[in-house]
Amino acid sequence: MLHLVTGGAGFIGSHLVDQLVERGDSVRVFDNFSSGREEFLSGHDDGGAVELFKGDLLDLESVIEAVEGVDMVWHLAANPDIRLGTRVTDTDLKQGTIATYNVVEAMRLAGVQDIAFSSSSVVYGEAEVMPTPEDFGPLFPISLYGASKLAGEALLTSWCGTFGLRCWIFRFANIVGARGTHGVIFDFIHKLKADPTRLEVLGNGLQEKSYMEVGDTARAMIHVVDNSSEQINCFNLGSGDTCSVRRIAEIVVEESGFGDVSIEYTGGDRGWAGDVPKAMLAVERLIGLGFTPEYNSEDAIRHTARCLIEEIGLHE
Amino acid sequence: MLHLVTGGAGFIGSHLVDQLVERGDSVRVFDNFSSGREEFLSGHDDGGAVELFKGDLLDLESVIEAVEGVDMVWHLAANPDIRLGTRVTDTDLKQGTIATYNVVEAMRLAGVQDIAFSSSSVVYGEAEVMPTPEDFGPLFPISLYGASKLAGEALLTSWCGTFGLRCWIFRFANIVGARGTHGVIFDFIHKLKADPTRLEVLGNGLQEKSYMEVGDTARAMIHVVDNSSEQINCFNLGSGDTCSVRRIAEIVVEESGFGDVSIEYTGGDRGWAGDVPKAMLAVERLIGLGFTPEYNSEDAIRHTARCLIEEIGLHE
Repeated sequence: MLHLVTGGAGFIGSHLVDQLVERGDSVRVFDNFSSGREEFLSGHDDGGAVELFKGDLLDLESVIEAVEGVDMVWHLAANPDIRLGTRVTDTDLKQGTIATYNVVEAMRLAGVQDIAFSSSSVVYGEAEVMPTPEDFGPLFPISLYGASKLAGEALLTSWCGTFGLRCWIFRFANIVGARGTHGVIFDFIHKLKADPTRLEVLGNGLQEKSYMEVGDTARAMIHVVDNSSEQINCFNLGSGDTCSVRRIAEIVVEESGFGDVSIEYTGGDRGWAGDVPKAMLAVERLIGLGFTPEYNSEDAIRHTARCLIEEIGLHE
Repeated sequence: MLHLVTGGAGFIGSHLVDQLVERGDSVRVFDNFSSGREEFLSGHDDGGAVELFKGDLLDLESVIEAVEGVDMVWHLAANPDIRLGTRVTDTDLKQGTIATYNVVEAMRLAGVQDIAFSSSSVVYGEAEVMPTPEDFGPLFPISLYGASKLAGEALLTSWCGTFGLRCWIFRFANIVGARGTHGVIFDFIHKLKADPTRLEVLGNGLQEKSYMEVGDTARAMIHVVDNSSEQINCFNLGSGDTCSVRRIAEIVVEESGFGDVSIEYTGGDRGWAGDVPKAMLAVERLIGLGFTPEYNSEDAIRHTARCLIEEIGLHE
């Protein structure tokens, strides 16, 4: 079976590629290598199961070419930096919404039917119900990234309803783990590398969210696609609990081995404009399908801190 | 007070302009006149309350210019033909999603805070709950038009959450009435004009939806904006009941005065790919705000048939 993974050289994408190859499938990776890295796929250099396609999802012709002959598309490419969307406001419109249009349109033209999509818990905005189930409404995302994810979901469901595609929509918790290239743990480690005596935390540290380990995430995606077959399949992917930013700061400091770090909070209930203070996903649908995550939120964070401290080289 | 109405020369837009002017406000109409018509605004030629701005929402610079100095934006412009989206699949992406991005971005740059937006009941897709309330989820639109409306809502809520805009989202039932330039009643009259002996109906005629008269709609929009002030205000606009396509065909034939019309159904439970067979909106929020529509669905349709038969000139 041949899979196309957009963003396949990225953080989550490269873990998904690993697991697809591990079970014997072939993968074509589509990536613009803006945040993805070839080294994340270097484990597959000798195997011949992974083919690299360097391209831009905003170029429909490239996407059509890349989609040709594949059995299924995993569309994971996106602007990885939620906060960037606030400064350059068409970032998520282009790299999220328009890129997703090109993907489903290319699939329609090439006759490819199945697509899995990395959406996000941020489509729920500041949900009044927590843990938030997949059928929660209304969906009022408050970040530009969230808007592009909801727009992407809608493009998928409309291509399903109009042109007969079948889709798996994954609403991710915060995904953490090895090869992370952004996010709170990544930022904390870089801050400690620059100054091992203090750690500045955006907000009051009380923001509290679900975290899921990236290997668990890739395994969950494959499990869900293997075990659900409605025309539209929508699943929260999370670990069922939460962790506060305050606790993350403590764990990163513990794992850093630095003795005397002053953790300082900038104050306010969110880290930046568009940040959601609290997010917890209901994962009963995922669990009901027979999937069990290996890590809970706090374990995922500690594991990630160890991996990233190693990768970033905190003590060099 | 100066309002900007995008699509203000169009079907719903021109009725909204009428009512804003009637209560003493000034209006700048932004329209590309693709389906809007200057004659819809000809009643205001002498009053000086209406200013025309001919432009394309896809040109951000024009939108920035048009937004300058207004107190509030009513963003009604969109591709009016749901079915066109199926043939030229980037129609709704451009005229819906990207145009809406340009509107909220221009507002951010110009410091304009308040926006009302014409969304649609099609964001609900094939909802399992009817009448469908505003907090229904999940939102899986099945038409490309519906996808662009949900994407537009998400752009608004994210600009609210990130940049402090305030929005009113109106999820319209099928809006009918004088100056209609598309839709089922419009199509039926044109078909009867071409051949007064038979009327072909797409689908089995059992599609059943909420209809709201356009004057009621404009009045409801103004009423809601006047009487709600959350940062995000979302309201279904409908008449609280439904009418079947079969009944619409009968009413149009009755009002046509043609004696012997054979109504013929093409079969199938939807009129075209992406059509929703049944849609009924819960309007308790609207009613709870003290608004009462003048027409129910069937009365709205009969009134519209009379207006459009007059406008189109069935017997000429």
